[in-house]
Amino acid sequence: MNSNFQVRDVAYKQKIIDSFEEQQVMQTLNASILAIQPGEVILKLPYNHKFTQQHGFIHAGIISAILDNACGYAAFTLMPENTGVLSIEFKINFLSPAIGNWFCAIAKVKKAGKNITVAEGELFSNTDGKEKLVATMLGTIMTVYN
Amino acid sequence: MNSNFQVRDVAYKQKIIDSFEEQQVMQTLNASILAIQPGEVILKLPYNHKFTQQHGFIHAGIISAILDNACGYAAFTLMPENTGVLSIEFKINFLSPAIGNWFCAIAKVKKAGKNITVAEGELFSNTDGKEKLVATMLGTIMTVYN
Amino acid sequence: MNSNFQVRDVAYKQKIIDSFEEQQVMQTLNASILAIQPGEVILKLPYNHKFTQQHGFIHAGIISAILDNACGYAAFTLMPENTGVLSIEFKINFLSPAIGNWFCAIAKVKKAGKNITVAEGELFSNTDGKEKLVATMLGTIMTVYN
Amino acid sequence: MNSNFQVRDVAYKQKIIDSFEEQQVMQTLNASILAIQPGEVILKLPYNHKFTQQHGFIHAGIISAILDNACGYAAFTLMPENTGVLSIEFKINFLSPAIGNWFCAIAKVKKAGKNITVAEGELFSNTDGKEKLVATMLGTIMTVYN
Repeated sequence: MNSNFQVRDVAYKQKIIDSFEEQQVMQTLNASILAIQPGEVILKLPYNHKFTQQHGFIHAGIISAILDNACGYAAFTLMPENTGVLSIEFKINFLSPAIGNWFCAIAKVKKAGKNITVAEGELFSNTDGKEKLVATMLGTIMTVYN
Repeated sequence: MNSNFQVRDVAYKQKIIDSFEEQQVMQTLNASILAIQPGEVILKLPYNHKFTQQHGFIHAGIISAILDNACGYAAFTLMPENTGVLSIEFKINFLSPAIGNWFCAIAKVKKAGKNITVAEGELFSNTDGKEKLVATMLGTIMTVYN
Repeated sequence: MNSNFQVRDVAYKQKIIDSFEEQQVMQTLNASILAIQPGEVILKLPYNHKFTQQHGFIHAGIISAILDNACGYAAFTLMPENTGVLSIEFKINFLSPAIGNWFCAIAKVKKAGKNITVAEGELFSNTDGKEKLVATMLGTIMTVYN
Repeated sequence: MNSNFQVRDVAYKQKIIDSFEEQQVMQTLNASILAIQPGEVILKLPYNHKFTQQHGFIHAGIISAILDNACGYAAFTLMPENTGVLSIEFKINFLSPAIGNWFCAIAKVKKAGKNITVAEGELFSNTDGKEKLVATMLGTIMTVYN
């Protein structure tokens, strides 16, 4: 945890849990939350053949889904009450095949601003207890004031 | 069709159809191919509540999945025989909510090289016959020589 | 010119000319404005050995400078009075060596929003009257309300 | 230094110094090398009004130039003999104004492959001894076999 991160909404964990549960795609992917702390969120994605590309690896878009959520929610931890979170854009590099028992998406805020937050995320595969870096994302997230 | 694009494998359409059918994720998403021509591929994604985020819009990752495939296959149309296609990275901007009856991903090659191809893709929503630009992607694809 | 683009500040051309002239780096690069219209800006960069990398090509960062300006100013053409323009981020692909007599950066707005505008830019080299695509950019620009 | 990084060319430092000195743009910017180690390069850029945008901050393109070089050379430290280094693309986010006495670009390799290397870079401003994160880059670099 970066001590520079200032939480502006004490309910930050609960609002992320609530939002995550409302995302049908996360249920469809059987994804779950592993950790939420100021400026950082860790999500879990199990391997599922239904979401693979032609070689049996998890598809780039599904990797993007879990990393985008991790980045967005990492940003959301630092936003004030009565706001929403919106992904403006992201860039993702694919570093090794997304194969393994399950995957771990770790996202951290680089800079939190009033309107714009930048976060980076890394996806690791877990194969029989061994971790490998699969993809890395750099994304821009907007605070939506309600 | 850009007349500068040179097809190096006469079977380019069939190999894309074959690859697309091997992608479990495309079947899971119920996606389909609308058009394949040199340097350009158009894919279709129906709306499905199972792949939505918290507001009922198609999730950014699912948008990425269909656009990444469109870009990759657009690149693949220009690759020689006995090669494979691999997404190195992409960047995507989200321009308006992914809501509608179905979505159309149009990808075009910007530059095709021996090893590296750059393609751009646009996703349009179709709502009662009306089109709207939802997202735009710029991606880098590698030719894998077998 | 895309007829969908709505100009909100009749002085849009003059404010871009003024801003461009205040950019010391554009003077240092001896860059100039070729065209300004709603949602589109074209800039010119002459070749100069002082801004080259190890092979005598214009450096990626200098290409980025002229394309970032073209994208930012294309966005600025559609912003209301009493606003400023700020690049949040961009992604750029380098497609061929930046060699030639001079270079032309053409940027067009993809989507103009109240706070966020997305623009794409292309850099062409001009060598003895022949054009070649050198680089392509996709960038995100913020409207700063004063 | 990441102990996983394997140096394949014992002359990796000298070839980076040589390449850097051949870049006219680095001399024009009065940039210098602060550190070279396996998978990591640190460059220095002094503030110079000649390279500023309309508010007196160092221009986004100049920030890109120094970060692109840092990323490219970080990748180059791990490449074998008789190869060259080529930036395919990068994405950069601008986090705070590039103002200060001088700037430090720190780049680290995320993944080094035979053909493709991914590196990330951060630019920090230094103002009267105080550091601030100004920009962050994620880039893709290709090994060019001579």
